[in-house]
Amino acid sequence: MNQIPVAIIGLGPVGQLAAKLAVQRPNLRIAAAADIAPEYINRDLGEILGLPPMGVTVRPTIEEALKTAGEPGAAIVCTGSWLKRITPQIVACLDAGWNVVSTCEQLSYPFVSCPEESRLIDEKAKQKGVAVLGTGVNPGFAMDILPVFISGVCSRVNSVLIERFQDASFRRLPFQQKIGAGLDLADFEKKVGEMTIRHVGFSESVQLIAAAMGISLDRIEERVYPVMATRTLRSQFLEIAPGRVCGVDQICQGYLDESAVITLHLQAYFGHPDPKDRTFIDGEPPLDVTVKGGIPGDTATCAMAVNAVKRIVNAPAGLRTMLDAGVISSWLAR
Amino acid sequence: MNQIPVAIIGLGPVGQLAAKLAVQRPNLRIAAAADIAPEYINRDLGEILGLPPMGVTVRPTIEEALKTAGEPGAAIVCTGSWLKRITPQIVACLDAGWNVVSTCEQLSYPFVSCPEESRLIDEKAKQKGVAVLGTGVNPGFAMDILPVFISGVCSRVNSVLIERFQDASFRRLPFQQKIGAGLDLADFEKKVGEMTIRHVGFSESVQLIAAAMGISLDRIEERVYPVMATRTLRSQFLEIAPGRVCGVDQICQGYLDESAVITLHLQAYFGHPDPKDRTFIDGEPPLDVTVKGGIPGDTATCAMAVNAVKRIVNAPAGLRTMLDAGVISSWLAR
Repeated sequence: MNQIPVAIIGLGPVGQLAAKLAVQRPNLRIAAAADIAPEYINRDLGEILGLPPMGVTVRPTIEEALKTAGEPGAAIVCTGSWLKRITPQIVACLDAGWNVVSTCEQLSYPFVSCPEESRLIDEKAKQKGVAVLGTGVNPGFAMDILPVFISGVCSRVNSVLIERFQDASFRRLPFQQKIGAGLDLADFEKKVGEMTIRHVGFSESVQLIAAAMGISLDRIEERVYPVMATRTLRSQFLEIAPGRVCGVDQICQGYLDESAVITLHLQAYFGHPDPKDRTFIDGEPPLDVTVKGGIPGDTATCAMAVNAVKRIVNAPAGLRTMLDAGVISSWLAR
Repeated sequence: MNQIPVAIIGLGPVGQLAAKLAVQRPNLRIAAAADIAPEYINRDLGEILGLPPMGVTVRPTIEEALKTAGEPGAAIVCTGSWLKRITPQIVACLDAGWNVVSTCEQLSYPFVSCPEESRLIDEKAKQKGVAVLGTGVNPGFAMDILPVFISGVCSRVNSVLIERFQDASFRRLPFQQKIGAGLDLADFEKKVGEMTIRHVGFSESVQLIAAAMGISLDRIEERVYPVMATRTLRSQFLEIAPGRVCGVDQICQGYLDESAVITLHLQAYFGHPDPKDRTFIDGEPPLDVTVKGGIPGDTATCAMAVNAVKRIVNAPAGLRTMLDAGVISSWLAR
């Protein structure tokens, strides 16, 4: 089998997990890795992942990592949520002739929030004859392309409601901190104001759905509410007293003619009694689709990024989204 | 808006419903229609559909219908389940320079069951610079591309189980007859032997999933069992006495190394207590996805065909499948 060369850019939890998944794939071969952390630089990637040596040395810059990687393939960029910050990294990959799959939330549908970066990336990718895709589980799947895909069997859609409910007590500590778990209400509101408590990619998901369904929204509204512990709640990392925040309840809505036609409802808090992913399409026919227990966050994001590789290397050049990157599927392991 | 010209080929229940849906779409314009039924020939399509006159006259042949239709767009071909029989019709559309979307079950993944027709259609389509797609709800969605799409968030898949359970008492008469409703067991078995009781497209769905997940199956096994009425059952059309057949229980499995890695389970009988569409992926993570009540058959098939039009006119030339035709979505109606 002709293996696709893969570069892992960023070795945080998401990048490391993506690397581990890529190692398992017979059709992929990790050819390069980059991270700025001093403790990783110049070490073998396998060693960092807790695997046998791989003959891939972690480099401090993308340029250095890709320079010696041989034939270009796809770079999996897991370095941040905000597109403005990571655009130079994407461009560095493109300059070296590599396709890019990234878990950057804003890249999932960046045309509205980051029009300049979108244009720059699209032009550069076309110039180099490669493709770029932002994906993950959310944004990238559960609250955008999955509902869009399901709508394929509807003759018309009046409105879409998407719920993603998660019990945050089983997630890793950075996620628990990101949803404000353990804060008092004043600190929670302060962090919401600073936009450090916030799901990045919400409006991007709404925009992708609107684009898929052929409408131009009048406006998008996003709200973040605290969920308060009513008893002592515990995770592996935190203990939350009653009266303190145990997570978030977030709503993002897209409006058309003063009517909320697209509603995304995200709840992530300790002890959620009904974790699930659900899409309800009010249409012809109405469709009510539930993923029992919900799709786990980190694993699914990394799986999606790795599964996207074989699509992106054959996609038309330019900045793609989940709407025009084709159907991305997993592999059946023998 | 630039409207895509659409031709409706075949005015049975599916073709008529597809035509009605196409009429509602601002981005489509019905430009031609063909059917061999003497009672339809030379009449206005609108009249046949119970709508105002449309200025589209039904012609007895595809050649005649498309000759006067102007700029080519997409022909929606709803004339049969078996690809060998309808290949001349598809070729006639291609010869006139039209893309084709068809509800022909075997066309959903025709490469194994109809290799010669597949090659002929692919070559002709490429020669004419147009694309061909077989789609519908099943095959075409519920038991193939939907599970494949969902697997995108799995880092690996061990096996796939897909259930489609339907209460057949609410379907139209031809469907009820196709599942043997009302027969005695001997007649049921006879018709199974003659292959007149059988879901067409089962093995095609299994093959599409296998192709998406990168495996070559050793074999596919298909079985049809009767479901017997244990009390008197009624529909708008039939009354079924206890002891007679009230529907079918069908299983199709794809084997890899003596293990059934893909299982499709279709139940359609009067009074099914738990109608639904369900995909269970045994993988990492495991995923259990249910469409409450199930996706209705005819509406969804027609919706999918009509929704596919805007994809197929922009798809790469040749014979496509739901795997490489891109994500097909509905529209949000104002």
